[in-house]
Amino acid sequence: MPALSQDLIDELDAFLIELNHAAAGEILPRFRGDHGMVHKEGRWSFDPVTEADKGAERAIRKLVSERYPHHGFIGEEYGEDRPDADFVWVLDPVDGTRAFIAGLPLWTTLIGLRFEGRPVLGSIGQSYLDEIYIGHAGGSRLIRGGETTPLKVRPCLKLTDAIIATTDPEMCFTGAELGAWTQVRAAARLARLGCDAYAYAMVAAGTMDMVIEAGLQAWDIEAAIPLIEGAGGLVTDWRGQPVGQQGGQIAIAGDRACLDEALVALRRSAA
Amino acid sequence: MPALSQDLIDELDAFLIELNHAAAGEILPRFRGDHGMVHKEGRWSFDPVTEADKGAERAIRKLVSERYPHHGFIGEEYGEDRPDADFVWVLDPVDGTRAFIAGLPLWTTLIGLRFEGRPVLGSIGQSYLDEIYIGHAGGSRLIRGGETTPLKVRPCLKLTDAIIATTDPEMCFTGAELGAWTQVRAAARLARLGCDAYAYAMVAAGTMDMVIEAGLQAWDIEAAIPLIEGAGGLVTDWRGQPVGQQGGQIAIAGDRACLDEALVALRRSAA
Repeated sequence: MPALSQDLIDELDAFLIELNHAAAGEILPRFRGDHGMVHKEGRWSFDPVTEADKGAERAIRKLVSERYPHHGFIGEEYGEDRPDADFVWVLDPVDGTRAFIAGLPLWTTLIGLRFEGRPVLGSIGQSYLDEIYIGHAGGSRLIRGGETTPLKVRPCLKLTDAIIATTDPEMCFTGAELGAWTQVRAAARLARLGCDAYAYAMVAAGTMDMVIEAGLQAWDIEAAIPLIEGAGGLVTDWRGQPVGQQGGQIAIAGDRACLDEALVALRRSAA
Repeated sequence: MPALSQDLIDELDAFLIELNHAAAGEILPRFRGDHGMVHKEGRWSFDPVTEADKGAERAIRKLVSERYPHHGFIGEEYGEDRPDADFVWVLDPVDGTRAFIAGLPLWTTLIGLRFEGRPVLGSIGQSYLDEIYIGHAGGSRLIRGGETTPLKVRPCLKLTDAIIATTDPEMCFTGAELGAWTQVRAAARLARLGCDAYAYAMVAAGTMDMVIEAGLQAWDIEAAIPLIEGAGGLVTDWRGQPVGQQGGQIAIAGDRACLDEALVALRRSAA
């Protein structure tokens, strides 16, 4: 079994930037253009997928398979392939497909890497903005326009000072979850809606304090875990426990004090 | 009284682009940085204003006063100055201040020009994205990275096909208004939240079909009217009537068929 040396982390980090550029090459020409949207069968009444989603995931898988033929995949569009390999790439090529088809530049490309079952490297890319938020245990950073800026969560000692986010309370939460969100929102200073995973990047960047989501899949969250932790933040479930490989109910926070206050409400609706 | 010749429209259009760049010079250095937020007294429990808002409005007013000393102003931050002049600039230097302080690049600079009481020219600028959506009766266009693209609304014959938006149902709507929004949302294909005036630009660009808002001020909407109309769309109140100088309840749509269907619900809650 390979060890995760610093050299290997550096190599995979550089490769992850390549993967972001490959995904951008498939997505950007279809943004605000002919994206070939179709409806996916599943749990939502409207669950769109586009040629951008599919093209980007294919491009990422192709590059990985050429460079690291023994790595596995878990992807939103093309499913699992060797999900028990030492290294597994967890992919959401276009998170926020609803934003994408509405022309809003808040969709992101989520690419996470699991090593021996743990998320060790991840990126949130927004190629229309020329932004790649990327991180691992050694630290997180924003790459934009050739410039690199370190990412660091900010302190937030009280929920009443917090800027929080969720994507869509009515669509994503059960009744009990909606109650918990409403209670947290009432206490927070400001809430933003409709940001999908871009809000996670804002926590890493220290412009938001907390994101609360439910009903997530692994590919919706796994890329964010190393990024948030590398920026000094926390990713837990609604009981405050580490997030497993299943997604589900998630709280992302920059400061444990703010998270603990929110967990008082969230815990009562924890699955 | 001056006539609004094509030459004058062209001159003012070019000047409006200058105003956008001046505003960007004040706003961008403060985005995701030290923006000096304070709380404004008023109708909201949390109504932030920043040095970006104030600096941008001052920069715009200064340029206008130097070039066109007889023009008037109505601005969110610095109030009215000769609001009955032939030409009046209607300014919201940072629409979406909540998005701005959260680090989200969906805030916009709204600059509208009234001539003899009617909105004749307007722009929605998003300088972090290097985007200026600008329009008048002769047509609308997007300027980005030195390239210019014509803006054109898209057909949408049925509300069930529509992508719609509002900023924040819980914060911006009264109970009756929320009922109307909920009914329209239930019929629409997809709803996006939290976009502020950036959603108007998406209607002009043909990636969204309708925006529904209430409680607007003149500076929240006036810049969008020539832009939307120049792209072939409609701006009305919740009765389907032309919008006066007061803001209030607004529906923006690319296609009259889709608007008419929504008005069945909106009209019952019209002020």
